[in-house]
Amino acid sequence: MVRGKLLIAQGGGPTAVINQSLVGAVLAAGERDPTLRIYGARHGVRGIIDEDFVDLTDEAPENLEAVAATPGAALGSTRDKPDLAYCQEIFRVLKAHGIGTFLYIGGNDSADTVRIVSEEARKEEYALRAVHVPKTIDNDLMANDHAPGYPSAARFVACAFAGVDLDNAALPGVYVGVVMGRHAGFLTAAATALRGADEGPHLVYLPERTFDTDRFLAEVKAVHARLGRCVVAVSEGIHDETGAAIATKLVKHVERDAHGNVQLSGTGALSDALTGTIKDHLKIKRVRGDTFGYLQRSFLGCVSDVDQREAREAGRRAVRFAFDVERDGSVAITRTEVKPYTVSFGLERLDAVGGKTRVMPDSFIAESGSDVTPAFLDYVRPLLGAGLPAKAALRAPAVEKLLGGAS
Amino acid sequence: MVRGKLLIAQGGGPTAVINQSLVGAVLAAGERDPTLRIYGARHGVRGIIDEDFVDLTDEAPENLEAVAATPGAALGSTRDKPDLAYCQEIFRVLKAHGIGTFLYIGGNDSADTVRIVSEEARKEEYALRAVHVPKTIDNDLMANDHAPGYPSAARFVACAFAGVDLDNAALPGVYVGVVMGRHAGFLTAAATALRGADEGPHLVYLPERTFDTDRFLAEVKAVHARLGRCVVAVSEGIHDETGAAIATKLVKHVERDAHGNVQLSGTGALSDALTGTIKDHLKIKRVRGDTFGYLQRSFLGCVSDVDQREAREAGRRAVRFAFDVERDGSVAITRTEVKPYTVSFGLERLDAVGGKTRVMPDSFIAESGSDVTPAFLDYVRPLLGAGLPAKAALRAPAVEKLLGGAS
Repeated sequence: MVRGKLLIAQGGGPTAVINQSLVGAVLAAGERDPTLRIYGARHGVRGIIDEDFVDLTDEAPENLEAVAATPGAALGSTRDKPDLAYCQEIFRVLKAHGIGTFLYIGGNDSADTVRIVSEEARKEEYALRAVHVPKTIDNDLMANDHAPGYPSAARFVACAFAGVDLDNAALPGVYVGVVMGRHAGFLTAAATALRGADEGPHLVYLPERTFDTDRFLAEVKAVHARLGRCVVAVSEGIHDETGAAIATKLVKHVERDAHGNVQLSGTGALSDALTGTIKDHLKIKRVRGDTFGYLQRSFLGCVSDVDQREAREAGRRAVRFAFDVERDGSVAITRTEVKPYTVSFGLERLDAVGGKTRVMPDSFIAESGSDVTPAFLDYVRPLLGAGLPAKAALRAPAVEKLLGGAS
Repeated sequence: MVRGKLLIAQGGGPTAVINQSLVGAVLAAGERDPTLRIYGARHGVRGIIDEDFVDLTDEAPENLEAVAATPGAALGSTRDKPDLAYCQEIFRVLKAHGIGTFLYIGGNDSADTVRIVSEEARKEEYALRAVHVPKTIDNDLMANDHAPGYPSAARFVACAFAGVDLDNAALPGVYVGVVMGRHAGFLTAAATALRGADEGPHLVYLPERTFDTDRFLAEVKAVHARLGRCVVAVSEGIHDETGAAIATKLVKHVERDAHGNVQLSGTGALSDALTGTIKDHLKIKRVRGDTFGYLQRSFLGCVSDVDQREAREAGRRAVRFAFDVERDGSVAITRTEVKPYTVSFGLERLDAVGGKTRVMPDSFIAESGSDVTPAFLDYVRPLLGAGLPAKAALRAPAVEKLLGGAS
């Protein structure tokens, strides 16, 4: 029998598959010990200090499966990042409810929360097993090949750019699409995943490289001159040589969350500034921009089956590690084979993941700084999952001009 | 044997299914007369005056099927709207190439182009049969129950709002999503199609009603007070009591296309202005906005099978009407039965469709002016097609608080 109750919470931005991890953990825990009581905290650590718990023990498996297939965080999420006082409050509640195991599904901030909670538990000699379950569309977790949530968001971005590229080919001009990703360019880079020869995005600007407006304009101009059009993928996190985000330079009221992060999403300012700059300097008539925003992480019906299975397994493994391994940690995904694509799940140290940020390796970024490499395409394509829609062009031959038409 | 060659072109904004109409017409024409030569004009009427034709006659059926399943306009599109001189130039080219039938797939501007071309042909006693094939995500064509392109775009908007509503429920606050639709609110209204009780969008602002900022703020405040969050769907075309678009009041450089239409898409200004207003006046901390932009009409893999079949059929019928009916016209869709959903295809007069705009009937708009009616939901739901993703919530009971937690 497992000692104490199991408590599960979800933190940070929701994804298409964070509920898979929740359901994987609940089902695995129930199989492991049918007498175990399983609580869920509403809205992450905030729900713990508020004692806002639901009892998941008797949730019907059929409904759990339906929840697993639903995007968003079914327990609710939070942006709170506990400090010491917050953690002491967490303990008071965990003790009162007899919680023996704590699973927190989230990104590197959530991993850091688990690290603090774990350390405080040890200091107070409270018998708690705490495990972090990885989740982030940004794909910026250290010690992971990739994180659950990224593959589905990458699929969305890839399908979005495949579509806007077809649209731009039909009505030529310049198109700028702004993609989420504060420090890591993985999601922006995924814009290239379905790209064919001369298809867009023709230029990709990542936060791993310094953004230079003059070079940007010269590159857009060159592509437009060659193809009569240009599709650009830009990360919301692009910055100048001082490290200042291009987005924050343009927004009057900078908003910061509890982690000190500047609010970059939920505004079209960066896209509007970039398209305005192109119009002003390059005298190209049709220039359009979109900010993909929250659709990237929430769109109902765009999910990678690879991601679904891995997120489910990450939740299951968290339960196994919590009950069988004598230390706290963070579930981590390693790619064990490239072809066929194979992964394994390990337990990393919390301080190897918590509060740290992984960025794109140099091997994934083209020499130009404004494109990806074939190595990145080999990395991202197996993650997108099955059933990707195809696209095709007409092959019809041109008809001879009889009147010497203009083009 | 059919007299002269068949010429097909695509105009206006691409959609998820405009290539279905193209392929439907090409295949139907080939079946009708295997000796018929079928040309496609690249980039709409612009391609005609430029003599930029491709010969579709021998395009492989397998490739045509692949093109049909691809979003965007495979022939390329245009925003050009021919005047008399432009039309005279069109005739010169049509005569030179021996075109006997002209099919133009597009919206109400394209229908008006066909009307002008048709009238000029009659004046010049040139034997041309000209048929307009309906297409628009705005769904603003007169004499149609709905237009091909709308169902797939409606599905995208419905899935997007279902997703952002789940996201907003997980991280509560106010969310504003701006949807395409200059004069007609059909696409914005589709945001409600998958909505359950107390789910978002909780408020819907349509161009059919005057937008009043004070009332908007009061309504957002009331929903937020009741549910702790609020999701809002807004049409890009909302306007004040003078008819001035709220978007254009906020954009410094107003851009107009060849039709005199103000450029409303491809900028995040309206969303940013509305979220800024909410932050300033309601002191709500988490306020986010997105502009759905070009993803609504181009996203690869979000398509209604109802829309696919109807767009294909509209193209097929255009060929039948062109060869069997002794007048020019516009293919139009009538809903013949509500349950089960059934449609028929007729041939409308060009001047009943061309250059005219249909808006939402009053019966589809709630008394409040900021929501839809059940009649609209009955109208839109059969259009969304099969295989809509489901969503589910946890049913777990709350756990008794032991320490009198804060919430």
